[in-house]
Amino acid sequence: MAAKTFTGVPCPRFCPGDRLLSKSQIDGGRRNHRRNICPRISAASSSSEPSIRIAAEKLRFDSKVETLLDRVKWDDKGLAVAIAQNVDTGAILMQGFANREALATTISSRKATFYSRSRSSLWTKGETSMNFINVHDIFLDCDRDSIIYLGKPEGPTCHTGAETCYYSSVHDLLEGPKPDQDRLASTTLYSLEATISQRKDDIEAEENGKPSWTKKLLLDKELLCSKIREEAGELIQTLLENEDRSRTASEMADLLYHAMVLLKLKDVKMEEVLGVLRKRFSQSGIEEKNSRRRPDK
Amino acid sequence: MAAKTFTGVPCPRFCPGDRLLSKSQIDGGRRNHRRNICPRISAASSSSEPSIRIAAEKLRFDSKVETLLDRVKWDDKGLAVAIAQNVDTGAILMQGFANREALATTISSRKATFYSRSRSSLWTKGETSMNFINVHDIFLDCDRDSIIYLGKPEGPTCHTGAETCYYSSVHDLLEGPKPDQDRLASTTLYSLEATISQRKDDIEAEENGKPSWTKKLLLDKELLCSKIREEAGELIQTLLENEDRSRTASEMADLLYHAMVLLKLKDVKMEEVLGVLRKRFSQSGIEEKNSRRRPDK
Repeated sequence: MAAKTFTGVPCPRFCPGDRLLSKSQIDGGRRNHRRNICPRISAASSSSEPSIRIAAEKLRFDSKVETLLDRVKWDDKGLAVAIAQNVDTGAILMQGFANREALATTISSRKATFYSRSRSSLWTKGETSMNFINVHDIFLDCDRDSIIYLGKPEGPTCHTGAETCYYSSVHDLLEGPKPDQDRLASTTLYSLEATISQRKDDIEAEENGKPSWTKKLLLDKELLCSKIREEAGELIQTLLENEDRSRTASEMADLLYHAMVLLKLKDVKMEEVLGVLRKRFSQSGIEEKNSRRRPDK
Repeated sequence: MAAKTFTGVPCPRFCPGDRLLSKSQIDGGRRNHRRNICPRISAASSSSEPSIRIAAEKLRFDSKVETLLDRVKWDDKGLAVAIAQNVDTGAILMQGFANREALATTISSRKATFYSRSRSSLWTKGETSMNFINVHDIFLDCDRDSIIYLGKPEGPTCHTGAETCYYSSVHDLLEGPKPDQDRLASTTLYSLEATISQRKDDIEAEENGKPSWTKKLLLDKELLCSKIREEAGELIQTLLENEDRSRTASEMADLLYHAMVLLKLKDVKMEEVLGVLRKRFSQSGIEEKNSRRRPDK
């Protein structure tokens, strides 16, 4: 039941239960995208009655895909913008263009596939580097001319080896002392994570000067643990004593920050934590896990 | 010191110290983007010597902006893809196109500005609705033909009133029982938040059936608080007892989930928590705050 009730948490949503496809299957998907939109179906039982049912299902699915492809507002070159986004961190990994075939291939193969304007051909991200982007869901914008491939990258996305293609900050280019320094386009949580990581590197480089609070926490496990307990207690207090909601936001920020310092000491990334949450909710669910655990406590 | 050391956490980075600009200033920025890239400078002291220094500074800045604009790989129509992303949540808000003038205007006004292909004119998101996107930093991709406006939206971004323009899931369009149901392209943390929120709505609708774990927590504050304490303790234990790092990721996931249930009871969104973290780090910093607090404890 839990798996069903948690479809709100992104997990691979096309052809559920199917394994991820190999490169040859992707190529097959390309050639046959009109005839074989969902390869899962063709791998099913070959006994007569189910195969008729499956063929009918496949026809229905193919027809729906065709309708969907018809609804996209392709530009005069038959293209729409396609943005690949990391399902766990929200990082924008790369941006390319998709044509009808590229979107159909992404739906069938669940690997982010684009149309290369320079080579005038389909291009599945990772077909050379093996750094595929496994697509969990696809979104269209309100005008139906822009697409998000929401997925999980296998390895770095950028051909330079960077995690994403967006590592040149205009601010740094205009104002920074080191114009060649690369810095990813990070949102708040991951910028904080990078800052904590930098503090740890500073300690390892034995940098002098007054240690920052983060450095103090990184150097003193007992202090860090007592702070996590304290912040958890303060968060709880905002609920039990019905404190203002701004206090709740503030105490949660404190708890999150201190817990992230602990993560750094264990070399665990927030992305891994979010991966755990996604898998837990899309498999048996935290709810189910806790229902099972509770009677033992 | 803390403010300096925390520039990794996104905060408005252009023309630091400047207030956000009004619509008329944005329009001015458009008309004069070559002459007046950074309006902050023109508002400074009018006394002779500083004004010479400021004029020189402005010239240098304008020249850098021109160099930057020259480096962007504009397409045959003079455009590049521009994606607006929420700095706190990572949500992709909308996607449009920028030309040279639109990017220059965004740099000067710090309001996400695009080139409308249908109207053949500049368009600042929010100029009609007042739902501006306040840009904190701008990123170029490795090919310099794709741009991220990383910023904070004022109100919903989509003209439909939706938080973002990406609310049509291809999965739902293909497989869902309610093809017209809108669901935002949410990453893991926000999908979990939506699921918790749904559980609370279910309770309020007095839905029958076996309550889920989340519902039990929402209904029993004492249970929820004891779980938060317990999960914080288990996270700490992974550090103190040097447990496997996968245990750390798992316990952090548990702590985060239970704390988010508490947030829901207080109607606090993760976006608010991340906003607190961003402001704290870009102003005096958690580090400074804690350094100040520590002697009292």
